[in-house]
Formats: sequence, C-alpha cells, structure tokens
Amino acid sequence: MSSAWLLPEHIADVLPSQARRIEELRRDMLDMARSYGCELVMPPLLEHLDSLLSGTGRELDLKTFKLVDQLSGRSLGLRADTTPQVARIDAHLLNRAGVTRLCYCGPVLHTRPDGLHATREPLQFGVEIYGHAGLEADLEVQELALDALRRAGLSDVAIDLGDARLVQGVLGELRPPAETLAAIVSALAAKDPVALTAASNGLPAEAMAGLHALLGLYGGTEVLAQARERLPRNAVVTAALDDLQWLASHLQQVHPEVALGFDLADLRGYAYYSGVRFAIYAAGSSDAVLRGGRYDEVGAVFGRRRPAVGFSLDLKALVQLSPATPLRAAVRAPWGEDAGLRAAIRRLREQGETVVCVLPGHEHEGDEFDCDRELVRIESQWVLRAL
Amino acid sequence: MSSAWLLPEHIADVLPSQARRIEELRRDMLDMARSYGCELVMPPLLEHLDSLLSGTGRELDLKTFKLVDQLSGRSLGLRADTTPQVARIDAHLLNRAGVTRLCYCGPVLHTRPDGLHATREPLQFGVEIYGHAGLEADLEVQELALDALRRAGLSDVAIDLGDARLVQGVLGELRPPAETLAAIVSALAAKDPVALTAASNGLPAEAMAGLHALLGLYGGTEVLAQARERLPRNAVVTAALDDLQWLASHLQQVHPEVALGFDLADLRGYAYYSGVRFAIYAAGSSDAVLRGGRYDEVGAVFGRRRPAVGFSLDLKALVQLSPATPLRAAVRAPWGEDAGLRAAIRRLREQGETVVCVLPGHEHEGDEFDCDRELVRIESQWVLRAL
Repeated sequence: MSSAWLLPEHIADVLPSQARRIEELRRDMLDMARSYGCELVMPPLLEHLDSLLSGTGRELDLKTFKLVDQLSGRSLGLRADTTPQVARIDAHLLNRAGVTRLCYCGPVLHTRPDGLHATREPLQFGVEIYGHAGLEADLEVQELALDALRRAGLSDVAIDLGDARLVQGVLGELRPPAETLAAIVSALAAKDPVALTAASNGLPAEAMAGLHALLGLYGGTEVLAQARERLPRNAVVTAALDDLQWLASHLQQVHPEVALGFDLADLRGYAYYSGVRFAIYAAGSSDAVLRGGRYDEVGAVFGRRRPAVGFSLDLKALVQLSPATPLRAAVRAPWGEDAGLRAAIRRLREQGETVVCVLPGHEHEGDEFDCDRELVRIESQWVLRAL
Repeated sequence: MSSAWLLPEHIADVLPSQARRIEELRRDMLDMARSYGCELVMPPLLEHLDSLLSGTGRELDLKTFKLVDQLSGRSLGLRADTTPQVARIDAHLLNRAGVTRLCYCGPVLHTRPDGLHATREPLQFGVEIYGHAGLEADLEVQELALDALRRAGLSDVAIDLGDARLVQGVLGELRPPAETLAAIVSALAAKDPVALTAASNGLPAEAMAGLHALLGLYGGTEVLAQARERLPRNAVVTAALDDLQWLASHLQQVHPEVALGFDLADLRGYAYYSGVRFAIYAAGSSDAVLRGGRYDEVGAVFGRRRPAVGFSLDLKALVQLSPATPLRAAVRAPWGEDAGLRAAIRRLREQGETVVCVLPGHEHEGDEFDCDRELVRIESQWVLRAL
C-alpha cells in the first residue's frame, strides 16, 4: 500500500504549472492548424488490431499495447500513432474527392519508450493534407510546422530535409529481399557504416557505394550538389533531389530565419514514408521536435490510395523547449452570502478573471494563484483593491 | 481487409463538425474551472492496477481494461475514471495543507458501455476541491457545474440532490455484512422495492421501513419535509437532511432558473461518496449529464484522508445536448509564390482568420470551410473581396 502511488516507468503525472503550459500550446497548435484550413478529428484510442497495424510495419507493432475486447473476443490495440487512423478517416468516413486538411491532438501509448527520458504516453498533435500529390502540399505542411513552432516560442529552429525514395533510387533495378532492405534501412537510420556493409554485402559495388554515400550526405545546402555527384543519376534519384531543391529554395524565402539542412540517410519511421520527409530541431533538444513527410501509401490498406503529407509532434516534449508563460494574476474574494458579493464575483469571472473564493476557516492560507487584487466592500460597494 | 476500418462496438471516430464543437466545449469547461481558481492536472492513462483500483469498488474494477507492462511484468490498468488519480495527485504530489482546487479533461476507457448508446471512450472533464469539509465547498462545485452547463448552452437544467449518509443513517446502529449492504444499495439505486425487501430481509422492521421510505423520497422541495417525517430521527439522518436544506436554499438563491429536486435513493457510484451528492439533468437527456458529490475517503488509500468534493461529465455526451455553433466563415486564397500574396495570407492567419489555399489543379473543388471572402490582386495589392 505504501507504493500505491508509484507510477509505471516512463509514465508520469503532469502537474499544474506544466499542464497549464501544455494546454496553452495545445490551443496554439490547433488554432494554427485551423488558420490553414485544417479540420479537427478525434479518432478513438482503441481499435481492432488489424485495422490499427495494417501496413504500418513491425516497429509500430512492437510499440502497441494489445488487449482483448470482452464484447467481441477480438484483439484490440491502443494507438501508438494517430496517422494511420486519420488516413482511415480520410479514406472511409469523409471519402472526399478533393483536398482534405485534417488535424488531431490526443494521447498515444507506447509499450516501450523511444529513449532514455522519453514518456510512454506522448500527447500527439499532427496535421495531414490528403489529395494533392504536388510539392505545394509538402511546402504547406512544412510552413505550418514552422509557424506552429514559432508560435510555441522555440528558438534556433533548424529543419532537415531528406527523401524516402533515395534508398530505392540508389538500388536502381535491384529488389533485395524485404529483410535485406530492412537491415539496410536500419543501418542507414543508425548511421552505422559497419552494419551497412554487412547488410548490403552481396549487392553490386555501385549500389554499395551509393548506400555508403547516403551516410555521408548530411549538412547544409551544399549536400544537394554533393548528392548529384555521388549518387547514381537515374530518374528516381534525380526526381528526389529536384524536389528537395524546390522545397529548399521556397522554404528559404518563406522562413529565412530557419537553418536549412539535409540528412539524406535520415530514415526513422521508414515504413510510412514515400517521398520528401523532414525533421525539425530546436535549441535544447537532442532529438527532433517534429517529424513529417509524404506517405502516399498510408491509406492504401483502407482501399484508397490518396496522396498524403503531414507531420506530428509530442506536446509533452514541446513544452520542455517552449519558454514559460506567466500565470495570469488572480483576484481573491471572501466567502459570503451577500448578493452583491456574489454578483461581483460572477461578473469578474465572466470577464475572464480567476476569482479564488477563500472558504471559511482558510483565511490564512497561501494561494497557488498569484492574487494581485482582492474584492473588498467599501461603503456598500464591492470593489477591487490591489494587494 | 474489407473490414479493416470497422471499429469495435461502442467505439467511434469523432468527425470534424462534432470534433470542433467538442473542442469549443472543452475550452469553455476548462476556462470556467480556471475562473474559479482550479488548476489543471493531467494524470496518465495507464497506471499500476493496484493504484488505480484501490478503494474504488467492484464496479470500476469490472470497467477497467487490464494489460501487462513489458517493462516490469506488472499489471496495468487503463483508467476508467480520473477521480482516484486526481486524489492521488492531491495526496502525494501536491501534498498541500490548504484548500486545493483541481480540474482535468481527458479520455477514459470502459470495458463495457454504461448503456445501450454509451461510448466506451468518454472524454471526461471534472473538478475537485480538496481540504474543506464544509458545505461551502459543496456549494462551490455545484455552482461551478451549473455555470459550466449554462456556458454550454443547455436548457431546462434540473439538479437533483441526495446524500450517501442516509442509508447508514436509516440503518442506525446496525452494521449488516458488506454483501448485504451492497445488495441494499444496489436495490435502492435500481429503485427496485422487491429486491430491496429481499436484501433487507432479517433487519429490524424500523430499518426496513426506513429503507423503503427512501425509495419513495424523490421529487421537489417537499421531499425534505417528508423525509423528516418518514426517516428515523437520529444524528446522521438529521445532519444529512440539514445539509441538503442548506444547500437547496443557497442554490435557489444563486441559480433561481434551475429546477431543484431531491432523489434520496440515488446511489449510483456509491462506493465513492460520503456525503451530499448531486446529479444534473437537461432537456434531451435520459440520464444525468453530470454527477458529483462529496467523497472524503477517496484519498485515504494514498495515505491522506482529505475532505474532497467534485463532479465529472462526459464531453461526448454533453455535445449531444449543446446547441450547434456556426462555423466561422473563412477566406479562400490562390496558391502562388508572390511575396505580397504570402504576406497577406500570413497577416490574415495571424488575425485569427482561416485562410484556405487552393492548391494548383484543385481550383474547382468545393470547400469544407464556408469561404465568404477571397484574396484577389487588384492593381498591385492583395485585397479581400466578398464571394
């Protein structure tokens, strides 16, 4: 019983000062998405496992908590990622022909944490644009992401671009077995040249050289020129590099304050992505604050292969990087049955003020809210007086 | 694969029009709670089962999804109710001596739905006041509840009061075995006189008569006078009836528009409550929209027996009763690289407008947002024109 209050590892309560800031950021993010024309959806936390994990890869499977539905006896999963659910909503429930912009914000649960200090219950906010295959949609989600992080007050923001097509582009006509491809992707994602050599052993020398070249292709805008020299010049590689070039030049125009870089071997979450992808970093974070990109195949399992591009972030991680905001000062009021007092309290609350009523017997306790005024009766009027 | 998008029973997606309204209500509820001085907390969805279910009774146990933590091998539960978690936070993490007002808003999950049309994933909003045993705290949470429902636009609001002490009061010095007491409470909650007779069989005639009297004690303000006649006149019964009288008279002063009633046999969620309890009904709902009351024992299992009073509601149920709000009109803008156009779009978004950029090739699609203006270039200026 003494340990009844101990929480599981990588699970934590969010206490008032941080919860307030998370709620502010949540509203900022949703309002920013709305200003771009995104509609809010709320998919459920629980779904049938086959629906939740179709086409999303082994990584998500391992991260998903599973349980049995007493009502049906079927296996359910707790969502570890909201993106496939939103794709399902676009594909089936909305079923629109044109461009659809959606956003969401809610918890996801992970069986295992992503890192040493990661939570197993991120509060995921994300945006998706469906129905437009052109780069204008990629640019729009990147702009929205940067605007959202600016609104959150992040400094030294840097965006890294990559493209999921480059691995297949480098492999050209080769179609290695799925396990080989998975090992290659994992070695690239881990930036591990030894593992990459082992994984690509047996492939033609040109392909091996191309894969190793990818490992070194990260840095500033010079990376694109280097890539054109070092990677094979086939249609897939050229299309990916041209797209990256177009996006980079447009991003620099719209967000000149943002440091722009490339990381052509960044393949985290590879199972999803089918085109340009991006990661955004900020001062104080060791990992990306936000990741996104194009994943045109994500709705295919639900029967509709719609172009899709989007991003997501964890608000619990974002709040660590976002400057604190001051707690708005509140008003202290005595408890009383006087109708004038009650009317004055109600009026102040309707004006958006926090009015803390001091309950009888608690007159000498401190306030958690910073009260800078109090309601006092002067003659027959209840008025505010500075504290 | 054709059924990959079918959701489990009593689980549903929330689509844009309803999600927007839920988000508005969520902000209204949290802002209302804040205006009373409540601090927001965010307890986790997952906890150790023994912590989640300590002292909460069998009903909550049956409603709780259970799973095993891969990291520790221990049993975890998905919260089916947030109240015990918030009591844990008050008892251990905040550990304050004085009055503490907390609020929360997040999903809970139920293995079984509460009713034929109930969701198994309510979005629970709630408020708790810790540290004050007096009726002023009961009155404050009831006022907050009524203010919140008024803000949500509910009509024909009625509040029913009851008191968890009355059952023990009627039993007087009798201490029937736990199963007998549970059967009595369950028969009272179901308003089932036959079951009540069976459950109370063997008790002295006066106690049986008192319990049966409770069954009939519901209705308007006349109920209190009837209760004073029909129930035994001991200290517990008298204290409960006096408290109900005090609250009723104060509520009528502050919220004269609300229909006030009593239901002295309303014992849903009995395991929790230790004093006055209340349920609020509104036009269009068959069940209560909101339930609350005093549960001074809820933190005891965490080692601190603090007075506690609060309420909770399901925002997904509330939205069904709350009038729709109009979708704010948006602005349509063409896609373009023109710096003036981009600056105009950004300015509008910063002013809180929704600006939907028409991506190239989608010029003839309808908008999901109701665009009543468009950005057009007149001479060299980008200006708004009515549509």
